[in-house]
Amino acid sequence: MSQRNENGMPMKYSDRFNLADARRVARAAEEEATRHGWPMVIAIVDNGGHLVLQQRLDDAQLGSIEVARQKAETAVRFRRPTRVFEDALAQGGLHLRLLGMTNLVPLDGGIPLIRDGAVVGAIGVSGMRSDQDAQVAQAGANALPLAEPAGSL
Amino acid sequence: MSQRNENGMPMKYSDRFNLADARRVARAAEEEATRHGWPMVIAIVDNGGHLVLQQRLDDAQLGSIEVARQKAETAVRFRRPTRVFEDALAQGGLHLRLLGMTNLVPLDGGIPLIRDGAVVGAIGVSGMRSDQDAQVAQAGANALPLAEPAGSL
Amino acid sequence: MSQRNENGMPMKYSDRFNLADARRVARAAEEEATRHGWPMVIAIVDNGGHLVLQQRLDDAQLGSIEVARQKAETAVRFRRPTRVFEDALAQGGLHLRLLGMTNLVPLDGGIPLIRDGAVVGAIGVSGMRSDQDAQVAQAGANALPLAEPAGSL
Amino acid sequence: MSQRNENGMPMKYSDRFNLADARRVARAAEEEATRHGWPMVIAIVDNGGHLVLQQRLDDAQLGSIEVARQKAETAVRFRRPTRVFEDALAQGGLHLRLLGMTNLVPLDGGIPLIRDGAVVGAIGVSGMRSDQDAQVAQAGANALPLAEPAGSL
Repeated sequence: MSQRNENGMPMKYSDRFNLADARRVARAAEEEATRHGWPMVIAIVDNGGHLVLQQRLDDAQLGSIEVARQKAETAVRFRRPTRVFEDALAQGGLHLRLLGMTNLVPLDGGIPLIRDGAVVGAIGVSGMRSDQDAQVAQAGANALPLAEPAGSL
Repeated sequence: MSQRNENGMPMKYSDRFNLADARRVARAAEEEATRHGWPMVIAIVDNGGHLVLQQRLDDAQLGSIEVARQKAETAVRFRRPTRVFEDALAQGGLHLRLLGMTNLVPLDGGIPLIRDGAVVGAIGVSGMRSDQDAQVAQAGANALPLAEPAGSL
Repeated sequence: MSQRNENGMPMKYSDRFNLADARRVARAAEEEATRHGWPMVIAIVDNGGHLVLQQRLDDAQLGSIEVARQKAETAVRFRRPTRVFEDALAQGGLHLRLLGMTNLVPLDGGIPLIRDGAVVGAIGVSGMRSDQDAQVAQAGANALPLAEPAGSL
Repeated sequence: MSQRNENGMPMKYSDRFNLADARRVARAAEEEATRHGWPMVIAIVDNGGHLVLQQRLDDAQLGSIEVARQKAETAVRFRRPTRVFEDALAQGGLHLRLLGMTNLVPLDGGIPLIRDGAVVGAIGVSGMRSDQDAQVAQAGANALPLAEPAGSL
């Protein structure tokens, strides 16, 4: 499930991403969260893992402020959905080593944002069960236009 | 310039603040920034100093991501505009002790959000000169409705 | 001295930078350091402030490992030579506020790397007097080709 | 698998190591990585665990910047390949205590650099599967001349 291009190689990073994109992603995630009545925190980072947009829906738990951002950072740093790490950890054994890493949170809900075959950022969501967090993050990721609008950057 | 009520006592904190309020404040700040073509980061925290909303305008410097949040946190933690600390520091002497504080950033641009005479949060802005940051933060703070809309919380 | 384009606005960031570029910059810096017999640490980061290349010349002081990187990070985060902060601090008064910032080191020797009018990274040098550090950093920055070689990215 | 001398005692540390050595090690590691088309980060530290040389190959994931360095630091701090810790962790039970250590990363890919029977530093590699990281680190370690060249230090 790591992000690979058509040649099976790891994807590149690209900086073709701006606040308007982040807002589109966040809006779609928020609609999905609101539809279910889920109080969540939504964080969106750029291709360097730096925050572009973060919003906390009313009544979201405070702990999710940091977790949402960490999920997004992890997804950019390792160019894959954080679910990969959650699944690996569940298998135990060797995979417990993930718990020894200091720049990775192994929780579903962080998803890279892909445009033109490159990682332009990530969305991280926290506040409910991790599969629900991931459902909302995916709704957000799906809203990123594949190609950037002409003249927008 | 610290925030005091009509009896001269320090203000209380209040939690009468939500994401809709934060958005209203952020939108006003963004409009002021955009009017001048200033690439800035805008952060809004609640009465616990916890992030509610943060957004980075296109082409804002990366260093402002952390600084904007720190300004907002400082304004809530000490219930006063961060300019108070910048001014004090400029006087030197005893005021240099401010530099020994680890949970305070002495830079203009952080302003408490006041509602019904209580501190409900703060806005922090970074990206240009600190007086310009403060101008944008003030535009945001002015947009907070003094009374919360019926049924909004 | 902040990095501005021909319209007087802050420069944009760009990711048009790779390891070959970083090596060219580092080699020029190292030659300048070696010419003077200066034991130094040279750090080069990308437009997100992330390390691309770091090298410690023989007999450089250990403290410079972290300082060189911090100078480079500061130059990217605030898109200007770190000397701007050193000079401001020397004036005292209001400028002492820089000491209250946690993501900035106010030491000469960090210089943005500019290509096609955008900040693609920075070089940070530490090990001698800060003006000597800056001299070496500038020698490195001067070695960045203004345009990237065809097909290199 | 911990590093022991011919008498079965833990190895000593030695400072007979310089930047030229680090470059030879890094070059061999890079060649191995490039041969496979693996985008990786390579970090080399001295006998104090302090960075001598670090380089990020194009398109390596950002998370590997910190991980590569941590692997090298771990290998020096405990004078053994980090694979020892990964293997132990895979056995579970008592070995889970490794996860409680804050100055150790239990991931294959960190290997001590040995010269004249003493630990002079370590190489850490990150970017692909941990066994591939280790393969590249080993190629680097193998390139360290057993005896230092006359006059090199």
